[in-house]
Amino acid sequence: MVGFGNIGRAALEALEEAPDFEVAGIVRRNPNDRAGVPAEVPVVADITELGDVDVAILAGPTRSIEEQAKGILAKGINTVDSFDIHSQIPELRASLDAVAKAHDAVSVISSGWDPGSDSVVRCLMEAIAPKGVTYTNFGPGRSMGHTVAVKAIEGVKDALSMTIPLGTGIHRRMVYIELLPGYELADVAAAIKADPYFASDETHVMAVESVDALNDVGHGVNMVRKGVSGTTHNQLLEFDMKINNPALTGQVLVCVARAAMRQLPGCYTMIEIPVVDLLPGDRAGWVKKLV
Amino acid sequence: MVGFGNIGRAALEALEEAPDFEVAGIVRRNPNDRAGVPAEVPVVADITELGDVDVAILAGPTRSIEEQAKGILAKGINTVDSFDIHSQIPELRASLDAVAKAHDAVSVISSGWDPGSDSVVRCLMEAIAPKGVTYTNFGPGRSMGHTVAVKAIEGVKDALSMTIPLGTGIHRRMVYIELLPGYELADVAAAIKADPYFASDETHVMAVESVDALNDVGHGVNMVRKGVSGTTHNQLLEFDMKINNPALTGQVLVCVARAAMRQLPGCYTMIEIPVVDLLPGDRAGWVKKLV
Repeated sequence: MVGFGNIGRAALEALEEAPDFEVAGIVRRNPNDRAGVPAEVPVVADITELGDVDVAILAGPTRSIEEQAKGILAKGINTVDSFDIHSQIPELRASLDAVAKAHDAVSVISSGWDPGSDSVVRCLMEAIAPKGVTYTNFGPGRSMGHTVAVKAIEGVKDALSMTIPLGTGIHRRMVYIELLPGYELADVAAAIKADPYFASDETHVMAVESVDALNDVGHGVNMVRKGVSGTTHNQLLEFDMKINNPALTGQVLVCVARAAMRQLPGCYTMIEIPVVDLLPGDRAGWVKKLV
Repeated sequence: MVGFGNIGRAALEALEEAPDFEVAGIVRRNPNDRAGVPAEVPVVADITELGDVDVAILAGPTRSIEEQAKGILAKGINTVDSFDIHSQIPELRASLDAVAKAHDAVSVISSGWDPGSDSVVRCLMEAIAPKGVTYTNFGPGRSMGHTVAVKAIEGVKDALSMTIPLGTGIHRRMVYIELLPGYELADVAAAIKADPYFASDETHVMAVESVDALNDVGHGVNMVRKGVSGTTHNQLLEFDMKINNPALTGQVLVCVARAAMRQLPGCYTMIEIPVVDLLPGDRAGWVKKLV
């Protein structure tokens, strides 16, 4: 495990529940910080200190993934991550594919719930009703990216941006902020609404006394596709989740770490690996139970 | 295409809409029967009459699949089918796997919507919330298997068995029959309710003047899983479809025919092939669009 924030902690819980993993240890900037780490799990500053490792779960910030993954793949260790900047996925995939193949390793990227498990469902929906439109509606739930964008704005002490689904892929942003002394809500709200993250969405900004008091990691998605199978219209498909966000992301990372051990060298996204590879044990048992 | 009933017709429609298929022809018992067949599509009695064929879509009855598939795989031609007797899938998979590997061919079995696309979603749900229960609720829609079972009962001229979802995987059977002269509804109803297909479900039998007047190929499914990701409970997952049944089955068969061309020799179910392989064109484009 590389990184030990919300996602790293959730992935560790999922690893400890899994029947087929041994936790080699946690890599973090300060190896003396053992907060939240079970006594039997080593904490180190560099992955090479952990001996033989099969797969590294990269649970740090999205922007750190490419460099980290390259370094670890170059040691012949598989990597998985939940890189979530949709527009940069093709580029990351190409870049890690070359490194992975050169070192006989596997990397599975963008493995959270969106991108991730949602992508698998979106892909399946597209296949079974090839003409039509899919709408992905997120929330209600906190958007990490939007929250970070608000926190960067002058006058904001703390912030939370909630994503509210309005249907057909349109979202409202409910932004809750704690103001720094000397700043006016109207000015800060205007700056938030002008930010590229918010400029094209309906955005409401509210001042609150405590952002922490609003903290809830629940999230959700509703994906709908109305499309055509063959020449038959009006095929109605829908996928819906209400979930604890870090817990699901951590669980997906663990499933994908397992699947990474079963692929040929290269870099993959979740739509490129058989779903049965996400599950422990042998295929035949799952074919019997789930098909 | 082997067989040209409801599913075969729907698969032909899906093939003609697909950007990357050429229809070699249709194999049917009576090659002179061209009912519903477009003028440019050959109809033959044996697949060898069609020249080079990459993949055969087996659209005949489930019980004919194994023998047909073995014969065609032995010619080095890939096969796909929508074999739907859940309990016999592992056996069919093992049997066709040996034949496929011996002749460098690929077989993808049980590729409709259940078993089929539902299996993919069930598998994904199991992976991302490993503890918990999944309920698959079918309908409302006609059950082919149950309808055939009713038709086999003495005194029944024609029949239709509708599956009504009652939640938590429990179903009601609404059975509509045309009686043969000289039979009493009460006697026939008792025989139907005693049949193993119906003995454990709430079953209602009604006599109607015309079964054909009730004919509607709409169907649906609602799959729900409430489970645990890592150590976090109450993860709520749901998949829902309202669809034209043969159209969806035909479309899935065509997607899987495409995927068959991209697998190593052997026999697979849909949970064992990457979902992206169901789509035409190259992976990178779909990664960019769907992940």
